[in-house]
Amino acid sequence: MPSEFGLIRRYFTHPVRHTVLGVGDDAALLRLRRGIDLAVSTDMLVEGRHFLRGADPRLLGHKALAVNLSDMAAMGATPRWVTLSLALPRADARWLRGFTAGFMALARAHDVDLVGGDTTRGPLNVCVQIMGEVPAGQALRRDGARIGDDVWVSGELGDAALSLAALDGRIRLAPRELERAKRRLDVPTPRLALGATLRGVAHSAIDISDGLIADLGHICERSRVAATVELSRLPASPVMRRHLDHPAATGARLAGGDDYELCFTASARRRARIERAGARLGLPVTRIGRIIAARRDARVTVLGADGRRLALPGRGFDHFT
Amino acid sequence: MPSEFGLIRRYFTHPVRHTVLGVGDDAALLRLRRGIDLAVSTDMLVEGRHFLRGADPRLLGHKALAVNLSDMAAMGATPRWVTLSLALPRADARWLRGFTAGFMALARAHDVDLVGGDTTRGPLNVCVQIMGEVPAGQALRRDGARIGDDVWVSGELGDAALSLAALDGRIRLAPRELERAKRRLDVPTPRLALGATLRGVAHSAIDISDGLIADLGHICERSRVAATVELSRLPASPVMRRHLDHPAATGARLAGGDDYELCFTASARRRARIERAGARLGLPVTRIGRIIAARRDARVTVLGADGRRLALPGRGFDHFT
Repeated sequence: MPSEFGLIRRYFTHPVRHTVLGVGDDAALLRLRRGIDLAVSTDMLVEGRHFLRGADPRLLGHKALAVNLSDMAAMGATPRWVTLSLALPRADARWLRGFTAGFMALARAHDVDLVGGDTTRGPLNVCVQIMGEVPAGQALRRDGARIGDDVWVSGELGDAALSLAALDGRIRLAPRELERAKRRLDVPTPRLALGATLRGVAHSAIDISDGLIADLGHICERSRVAATVELSRLPASPVMRRHLDHPAATGARLAGGDDYELCFTASARRRARIERAGARLGLPVTRIGRIIAARRDARVTVLGADGRRLALPGRGFDHFT
Repeated sequence: MPSEFGLIRRYFTHPVRHTVLGVGDDAALLRLRRGIDLAVSTDMLVEGRHFLRGADPRLLGHKALAVNLSDMAAMGATPRWVTLSLALPRADARWLRGFTAGFMALARAHDVDLVGGDTTRGPLNVCVQIMGEVPAGQALRRDGARIGDDVWVSGELGDAALSLAALDGRIRLAPRELERAKRRLDVPTPRLALGATLRGVAHSAIDISDGLIADLGHICERSRVAATVELSRLPASPVMRRHLDHPAATGARLAGGDDYELCFTASARRRARIERAGARLGLPVTRIGRIIAARRDARVTVLGADGRRLALPGRGFDHFT
């Protein structure tokens, strides 16, 4: 079995492009340009909670980085550097090869330097920290939503949760439907180009990792406002559209996490600009609701096709409930 | 049981001093001053590997931050920001209170902002990432040792490993001896003031987390040199001095990790300056050997009292061997 240092060297040493000093010292050294703020975020993924036991290591490597890139997208930041800490039950070279291949392919695609990390023996745990650049004062924050803003989402919502519902037997999908929906769960695409485009345009943004209601609720909480969302406006994939009437589908669209689309708010004057940006990026952007004054009973109200309030199927995904 | 968000808010939201935006958004925002590089390091601690099951959460909180601060010390960096990711078997408020108290007391003592993190359910795992400031180009790196340099260490070596040897029954210590030695294991003191003082003085530095031989070996490897160390010069605590002849003591001094002292190299012309710095800081600094040209047979050679080479008792602590 190779030593820890052998493992680190073999799998985690890659050329760096934005970095003074990379893997191999007590710390990496990064240099920021003038007028740039550093955006920093971290996510921990645990077997049996964020991914299934025996998950394909290549997909897991992709996802571990993708969910962190998604946080950069939600800030309007350009990701530059990442560290990766891994606890592994055993030093399994095949697993590490797969994981690293998935992780590094996505890192290279977004020109992100792997600058440090740690490996240790233990129950499987993947902890990634990402750092990115954003022009000072221009980050997309959760606390900037204003009353009257449109509420937007990118892409389509709920397919990742729909695939989980199918795997749990809560809804039946055709094999090809399941395969397509599960791609959204396994290989999320961080919306980095959209996030960067929204700097100076959107008033607030978040990535939808815990579900639309929960994440839009975070924007409302931090911005001290509320929101209404029209269920009929939520963008749905072809697979989702075939199951819209199923309760599991409604739950997946409103409260399913793991799609890693962006939810953002912007002045109505920005509509044309935002639609053009979506068209240019080949990424649907959809107005789904409005920001309203804070109210006591709910941060986010969902209106059904008849204009009546929906009883919500549950809160967003919460790792401790 | 409080929700994840409740947990984060209650235990991990603290005032920040150097930070544009702290906990509560998709990412924290940091601003660096001109001419400053960012030093970044991360460590993952796993139950049963880096700490015992049932470890005092307050001590664990201290140690989880201390080992990361030690990496900053070894770079000559001033720690500023930290993120903390935790996997916990259950949302145990008492455990979290203790852990946070230990962690935050040390953070406040060193004026470090907790700017982000993640909490999830899973086998106990603590992943900390630390970020610090170092004047551009002045970091203490592993790759700068030069032939003829003195090799220095701070403090005293081996007490942490000695306490582990006693707990394992490999050596017998009096209860008061064990208690004193175990303080070094449980409550390591990062040598931040020394690290900062060594900027522009030392040619290379590392913190001794894996044991002197292994860590000095890392300096030698990265600097393409070798080193000799005289066993009789290694600084020993009063407890250690009473057990110097025991094989477990020699192992602890040479290959025991977890003391988190600094090992550094510097030109002989710097001796007086380094000794004055140690005196000013109230921290012993001891010359233990020299940097020599790279050799094939060993990176680090240890000489006994008779001037003969010692057969080494083992490699440094390696989490995968």
